[in-house]
Amino acid sequence: MRRIAAILFDGFEMLDMFGPLQMFGMLSDDFQIVTVAEAAGPVRASRGPEVVAERSFADGAAYELLLVPGGFGTRDQIENPVLLDWLCQASAQAEIVTSVCTGSALLAKAGVLDGLSATTNKRAFDWVAAQSDQVTWRKKARWVEDGRFFTSSGVSAGIDMSLAVIARLCGEEAAENAAIWAEYSANRDSENDPFSLSGET
Amino acid sequence: MRRIAAILFDGFEMLDMFGPLQMFGMLSDDFQIVTVAEAAGPVRASRGPEVVAERSFADGAAYELLLVPGGFGTRDQIENPVLLDWLCQASAQAEIVTSVCTGSALLAKAGVLDGLSATTNKRAFDWVAAQSDQVTWRKKARWVEDGRFFTSSGVSAGIDMSLAVIARLCGEEAAENAAIWAEYSANRDSENDPFSLSGET
Repeated sequence: MRRIAAILFDGFEMLDMFGPLQMFGMLSDDFQIVTVAEAAGPVRASRGPEVVAERSFADGAAYELLLVPGGFGTRDQIENPVLLDWLCQASAQAEIVTSVCTGSALLAKAGVLDGLSATTNKRAFDWVAAQSDQVTWRKKARWVEDGRFFTSSGVSAGIDMSLAVIARLCGEEAAENAAIWAEYSANRDSENDPFSLSGET
Repeated sequence: MRRIAAILFDGFEMLDMFGPLQMFGMLSDDFQIVTVAEAAGPVRASRGPEVVAERSFADGAAYELLLVPGGFGTRDQIENPVLLDWLCQASAQAEIVTSVCTGSALLAKAGVLDGLSATTNKRAFDWVAAQSDQVTWRKKARWVEDGRFFTSSGVSAGIDMSLAVIARLCGEEAAENAAIWAEYSANRDSENDPFSLSGET
């Protein structure tokens, strides 16, 4: 059983979080979801409801998986040393570190993507890329796997990224079954990015 | 501005709820999300975190849109007269009533789908269909629109259904833009159901 820390902050994007959590949650013998935020308690999604963080950063940073969503709230968090320091500590210990959309900006700013390739939402690309010149930013990728780091493109791309994580940890059949159970027409090819801006590679 | 009541109950399915809410939430000039449950306060998702219900059933039943998710919790709610009565009252007043996955079982049991066509998750089809013989249950449909009722197939099908609602209320371009912003490869054809069981229509 691996614990996945789902990182909440004010203004996180709903589907960035709950697309991957749906996929991991369906494999309940393999993954346990734990919501984590700077402070335990309710955290409001961008243009959505409050979700309850069960644990605080102070409760520890040892989780097998991390899930860092994007959303407008990343604009505040990029200046939050408490969150960035925690991401640094937690990433050092995690088996797999994942982000969706502009969540990769937070990982990059925390320095944990130094020397690695990564991607993000194509419509926020310049802002994300400006957070670190130590990352090779990929403009055309549904998601990027570089070692134990999985960064995905915008919002729904996180679902495809999470299936790639499941395939690596639990096998291809588990990923296929998760997609079928959720009646999700998965994009299993990380290089197939229908939303990259024209002419970019 | 239309208010969409997102109905929470213990054991609701995460993506059934947050797929559609992502799409409606992106059109924040047109839709306001309100979480509603039998009692206000935290409500636990199936194999997931708690989400906070802002309003209770007792606070009123007048919303322009309803969103009824599925999930294992529907097995309990199908016997809950408080929820079924509220769905009946709220459906009578709503402009649009939507469900995802086994959420249509609750609408059917409440009697609000009598005389209409509807669909559900294909892997729970027999249980859902057994809740009412007054509904024409469709075994092959990504979602079904019958007047002001939109019922969708399993889990991720709710995203496609919500785009159909947005197209009806806000126009086709708004739906297309929502899908692109979320980097979601939408299935816009309600008759295209890749997950129907073989040979069924």
